[in-house]
Amino acid sequence: VAAFDQATAVHPRADGTTFDVALDQAWTIPGARPNGGYLLATVARAATAAATAAGAPQPHPIAVNVQFLRSPAVGPATVETEVLRTGRTASQVRARLVQDGSPCVEALVTLGTLHAGSEPWWGGAPPVALAPEEACLPMPPMLDVDGPSLRDSISVTFDPSVLGFMREEPSGEGELKAWFRFADGRDVDPLALLFVADALPPATFTIVNTGWVPTLDLTVYVRAVPAPGPLRMRFRARIIQDGLVDEICEIWDSADRQVALATQLAALRLPPPS
Amino acid sequence: VAAFDQATAVHPRADGTTFDVALDQAWTIPGARPNGGYLLATVARAATAAATAAGAPQPHPIAVNVQFLRSPAVGPATVETEVLRTGRTASQVRARLVQDGSPCVEALVTLGTLHAGSEPWWGGAPPVALAPEEACLPMPPMLDVDGPSLRDSISVTFDPSVLGFMREEPSGEGELKAWFRFADGRDVDPLALLFVADALPPATFTIVNTGWVPTLDLTVYVRAVPAPGPLRMRFRARIIQDGLVDEICEIWDSADRQVALATQLAALRLPPPS
Repeated sequence: VAAFDQATAVHPRADGTTFDVALDQAWTIPGARPNGGYLLATVARAATAAATAAGAPQPHPIAVNVQFLRSPAVGPATVETEVLRTGRTASQVRARLVQDGSPCVEALVTLGTLHAGSEPWWGGAPPVALAPEEACLPMPPMLDVDGPSLRDSISVTFDPSVLGFMREEPSGEGELKAWFRFADGRDVDPLALLFVADALPPATFTIVNTGWVPTLDLTVYVRAVPAPGPLRMRFRARIIQDGLVDEICEIWDSADRQVALATQLAALRLPPPS
Repeated sequence: VAAFDQATAVHPRADGTTFDVALDQAWTIPGARPNGGYLLATVARAATAAATAAGAPQPHPIAVNVQFLRSPAVGPATVETEVLRTGRTASQVRARLVQDGSPCVEALVTLGTLHAGSEPWWGGAPPVALAPEEACLPMPPMLDVDGPSLRDSISVTFDPSVLGFMREEPSGEGELKAWFRFADGRDVDPLALLFVADALPPATFTIVNTGWVPTLDLTVYVRAVPAPGPLRMRFRARIIQDGLVDEICEIWDSADRQVALATQLAALRLPPPS
């Protein structure tokens, strides 16, 4: 079993709607907190299982909205699900990650059917221009971390042009560009795209050196089943205003197709004017 | 009281978490179904009232996700709310519109504080290029409608370049551009922006003549308190694939600031290849 599948495994209880999960240290960010996209993927796996058990014929999460409420710790948690509708075109599920009685992540999951190898009937954008994978660079660790963490589970390499912020020379562009692979070579499927869409650091790091930028609300649309191989990602900030930023993430597969689009709203604390 | 405020009024029951609403014929689309953005705004008004009653200090919906499950009829309905978190920066609420015991709209609402007159600290896009309001045109009615409908409640006028589809000459651009006002002159505030973000017909009408394009999942970020006056809107399709389309809506105020960004995923049935 690939590391991602093991870490996001869900175990149904007898009620058929509650799932036990074990939040895994190897998918944490500094501070030993599980990565947001990892939580999202875990919740969506439970939601998909609940919908399938309720007769939904669609296998793929195609739209997922999440609110991040509290950061859970590594260890046991549950996902509570409620199937709201099973339909011909789409089915819809509400799901909540709970730890120690407190809701941590609230999610809306829409399931649909994507056809492997399909192409856009209209639209789509060409892949982000990105240096070849071998010329791209991992981000140095920002904090010492004890034990395994997200860095051990994935391979993200950035276009050298975006990494100035690591030398305190931010590009000012508001944009990160990177290649993505799982460290163990697992191919990315629609469920895993939900994780990938939140796997990069904040794009605002290329603009301003703030503390952490907690995501409040995240939406991912999965538009295609990725072809095997590495993914290319572009993560852009749009507007920083009133202590909030909205960012957009686009992901392309090795066949140059746009496979996911995500937006998020996050809070950030700007440094005082100098 | 302005028509929008009357139509979206919410009346708390003694439990403090359930709200009675009356879905109003004057906010319906053809088929006598309440407009999706109107439902969203009504649900968000109830969520905001519930959060305020629970001590949340933030007045504005800043991020709203909705799943459209079933189309309710005009008439009485309830909104059930659950405050998930009240925090310093943001508060978060889950809410559901129910009619005749069936969930119709499931929503996640994040509240924050926007400062009137604030400008972006970074980013933002200039307003869409649009013919002057007096040179723009309303969309002719597509179906005969008995009694009042959405067309009577709002004034939407389109850039003439996008209306070819009304003459069976679609532009192929995947883009609608329009001015927006409420018919009674009410200014648009953050709550009303939630409605405006879903007030235009599908952008896919400029590409292909399908039947209705039901929205499955909609996300609106409100980024600023609009200045008084008309709004400018651009609504663009991104990718049509596997019977689904994702669309993005941008809204600017009379002070040329981007005040809302919305994305949606909708289902559409393409005509058979000719």
